[in-house]
Amino acid sequence: MDNMDSGDEGQLSKKALKKQQKDAEKAAKKAQYKKQDGKENEPKGDDKDVSEGCYGDLVMIQSRERIDRKIYALKELTSDLADKKVWVRARLQTSRSKGKQCFFVLRQQKWTVQGLIYVGDKISKQMVKFVAGIHKESIIDVEGYVRTVSQKVESCTQQDVELHAEQVWVVSAAEPRLPLLIEDASRPDSEEGLATVNQDTRLDNRVIDLRTTTNQAIFRLEAGVCKLFREVLDNEGFVEIHTPKIISAASEGGANVFKVSYFKGSAYLAQSPQLYKQMCISADFEKVYTVGGVFRAEDSNTHRHLTEFVGADMEMCFNYHYHEVLDVLDKLFVSIFKGLRDRYVEEIATVGKQYPAEPFKFLEPSLRLEYKEGVAMLREAGIEMEDDEDLSTPNEKLLGRLVKAKYDTDFYILDKFPLAVRPFYTMPDPNNPAKWSNSYDFFMRGEEIMSGAQRIHDAKFLEERAKLHGIDIETIKGYIDAFRYGAPPHAGGGIGLERVTMLYLGLDNIRKSSLFPRDPKRLTP
Amino acid sequence: MDNMDSGDEGQLSKKALKKQQKDAEKAAKKAQYKKQDGKENEPKGDDKDVSEGCYGDLVMIQSRERIDRKIYALKELTSDLADKKVWVRARLQTSRSKGKQCFFVLRQQKWTVQGLIYVGDKISKQMVKFVAGIHKESIIDVEGYVRTVSQKVESCTQQDVELHAEQVWVVSAAEPRLPLLIEDASRPDSEEGLATVNQDTRLDNRVIDLRTTTNQAIFRLEAGVCKLFREVLDNEGFVEIHTPKIISAASEGGANVFKVSYFKGSAYLAQSPQLYKQMCISADFEKVYTVGGVFRAEDSNTHRHLTEFVGADMEMCFNYHYHEVLDVLDKLFVSIFKGLRDRYVEEIATVGKQYPAEPFKFLEPSLRLEYKEGVAMLREAGIEMEDDEDLSTPNEKLLGRLVKAKYDTDFYILDKFPLAVRPFYTMPDPNNPAKWSNSYDFFMRGEEIMSGAQRIHDAKFLEERAKLHGIDIETIKGYIDAFRYGAPPHAGGGIGLERVTMLYLGLDNIRKSSLFPRDPKRLTP
Repeated sequence: MDNMDSGDEGQLSKKALKKQQKDAEKAAKKAQYKKQDGKENEPKGDDKDVSEGCYGDLVMIQSRERIDRKIYALKELTSDLADKKVWVRARLQTSRSKGKQCFFVLRQQKWTVQGLIYVGDKISKQMVKFVAGIHKESIIDVEGYVRTVSQKVESCTQQDVELHAEQVWVVSAAEPRLPLLIEDASRPDSEEGLATVNQDTRLDNRVIDLRTTTNQAIFRLEAGVCKLFREVLDNEGFVEIHTPKIISAASEGGANVFKVSYFKGSAYLAQSPQLYKQMCISADFEKVYTVGGVFRAEDSNTHRHLTEFVGADMEMCFNYHYHEVLDVLDKLFVSIFKGLRDRYVEEIATVGKQYPAEPFKFLEPSLRLEYKEGVAMLREAGIEMEDDEDLSTPNEKLLGRLVKAKYDTDFYILDKFPLAVRPFYTMPDPNNPAKWSNSYDFFMRGEEIMSGAQRIHDAKFLEERAKLHGIDIETIKGYIDAFRYGAPPHAGGGIGLERVTMLYLGLDNIRKSSLFPRDPKRLTP
Repeated sequence: MDNMDSGDEGQLSKKALKKQQKDAEKAAKKAQYKKQDGKENEPKGDDKDVSEGCYGDLVMIQSRERIDRKIYALKELTSDLADKKVWVRARLQTSRSKGKQCFFVLRQQKWTVQGLIYVGDKISKQMVKFVAGIHKESIIDVEGYVRTVSQKVESCTQQDVELHAEQVWVVSAAEPRLPLLIEDASRPDSEEGLATVNQDTRLDNRVIDLRTTTNQAIFRLEAGVCKLFREVLDNEGFVEIHTPKIISAASEGGANVFKVSYFKGSAYLAQSPQLYKQMCISADFEKVYTVGGVFRAEDSNTHRHLTEFVGADMEMCFNYHYHEVLDVLDKLFVSIFKGLRDRYVEEIATVGKQYPAEPFKFLEPSLRLEYKEGVAMLREAGIEMEDDEDLSTPNEKLLGRLVKAKYDTDFYILDKFPLAVRPFYTMPDPNNPAKWSNSYDFFMRGEEIMSGAQRIHDAKFLEERAKLHGIDIETIKGYIDAFRYGAPPHAGGGIGLERVTMLYLGLDNIRKSSLFPRDPKRLTP
């Protein structure tokens, strides 16, 4: 490999360095710069560039030397720092030159500050022109004075100050044409007449799209859902486990499973950690949770299906009744909702600006209805259905609206589902084992976000139920055998992280809460 | 589906229930029992069983009713509870009858207590016989008096008390023949002449194997590694992300990758979250980490390779020098080691009983050596090698021993690896870019546990390096494009959770720290 940039660096950086060293305020003596490639700021006879060495393109930062320089975060730029000279590193979001000055906006995640540079004793016309020419989205280092402003800068998060630049260096230049503009991608759909960005363009250019303050907020909140999930369960004495994603057989019925070439044979991708978390219960872990990839080969192109999502699953023993587990799940969700509401105020507000939604409402403890009560509500609303008939998606949504109207909650639990619509390992209801089951779904804004149940912990009965479901017992031998040597009664459930985030925030598409979504038609980026 | 057990339940449980209700101490009025199937405790004329209704097989717990009964954890059974009547639910580990009495050991995760039942006014011969006949590993409910003992029960964790049983009910019966015995599986290899269990038998019957106190401790400690990893990085302002496991191209060179059928086309399983975590850096997340499945189609049948493992990866921006990141990683590891040492004292001691190992030693801050210093140490020890030659596994281990001897640490960082042995996205060392790189490995007990580096954040240079490595640029277009629109300098690294756990505890095989290990020959259970 050739030394790609030491030539430039060796000759041109010294001048910049010299200038830099004069700046007694800074400890940045050792930075090595190269000058801008353009010609305008080349010294020409008398017309010497007074700003020489104060701007240009930095050599690629390759860890030449460690520089002990305080770089301020944009959020730190407040009137507390008035008249202080600071360094910042941020993206150039926009710039606008106007005669001898150039206004620009710097962005760092969700924070923005207005910058300003104008021709003067220390600032040359060439430098202002250079700044005005920096491509949007480039990362730049700016040194300047924090100045308070008489009128609030309404368009930025840092409204009381602006930054008067004296040095501007490009750390990493963006290409001149962006596939999408951050302003467009940040605009609510409701602002008619102005450009917005369609979903495929966003996803094709996800790295830029993710830079919007809305996306920064969505994924911070999603990390919060996951953190709260673990926090609550850790406090309840759960152990975190990791279950295999590559499995030997299509364990949950065989349909909708991805096949993997495994050396000379083949394997499958797990459709859930279900069987393994149960095996851990039988292996005496008592209370377990796991967060990890879940894979569904469903050819569903809807607003709420992904072929790969993040499952957050739990499973626990109970003593006498699966409602002991339901209580823990109830507490889990209420704690997640409270945690989001209290700790992510800013993120929720940020997302709401682009994607307005009613604040998420919940009760404590959560509303619990039996399946047949839900069906009764639907019937009352004119829907004709049997009380053990499966809920269609429209009916599920309608029920959500009915529940909201009656109980003023966006979250509720539907308990005692019909046995026929649940997986083979679901425990039948002892009071009517042919019709009902000890299973439940949780709903947010009228959409299902969790399915769970008491599981059958008796190997013989489990085998019998699997056979009834037409499952080849040999393919799940390891699972069934797990219950042959003593297994406690247990129940659990799992959520999709993306779906909970989507519904909590009232987003209209799960692709908005998946960093790099996967669906039947999308595998990139 | 038929009602499988309501017949039994309806007729037989009432007697048991009646007896139960008399027990004024207990609030267990509503429990429903069925009697033991055997004949010995059937009332026969005058020979009425005085213990009738105090023992037997419980009907499968199907959440009939919620019972408000305090069930004590075995660890709570101490002399504080002396002479108190308590209920416990635990596994029957062993039992031994001796005339009119039967001693047994109850186990709950890592806790054990001695139980005792003897023929008396309330306890029939039949009942003692029933208890003696319960299969090992069955889960049983026992009610009895906690009694202090004059001589410590050396074989149990609860040494000051034993439990004098008055009721014994089988919650879930184990089959009579166990594929392996917990005692055998718990024995150190050093105890000659006594049975131990070989690895394949263990893994074939993993659910039972995992019940040993050693395994309970290993996986609790592993959860601790993960928790500490997140805790430290959360405190440093990192955001947790989730990267896709199904990817469109074999991104990191093409070899050793699992192929997946993806609807009508095909896809691959990610060999690391590398590219995606970097894309998140370019998407302004600044500091990210992710924990998730990592897949390697390597046909390596060694003590330290798995085809699927849990990767805990981080990536972060830095200002001037990748050592800013190395400092965070250093702190991360020191914090993990301290956290394990301080919070998992018992687990470490438990594992050490079966698998003795020297306590893990580390320095604060960690020892850092340059690659060439490591090579110099090896040369001094008689190894002939070039200073930029790759480290063979034996040399890696030897270096670990040399470092331990010289610096008394089991953990160290080797910095500035030869460029030639690193992936295409590694940043060359600016001082000798043809030979060295800004990359590092971390070692525990002489084995590599983390590889990391400053990454190339310049799209053109990245493309150039990828081409030099013979990578088809089209297959990683999304990745390279991620750096075209401004990207900050960044570095990171990733660990395998199983390997860190194995080496921290000094285990000899990574299959000991993977719940359900996957290797070229093992896909089940």
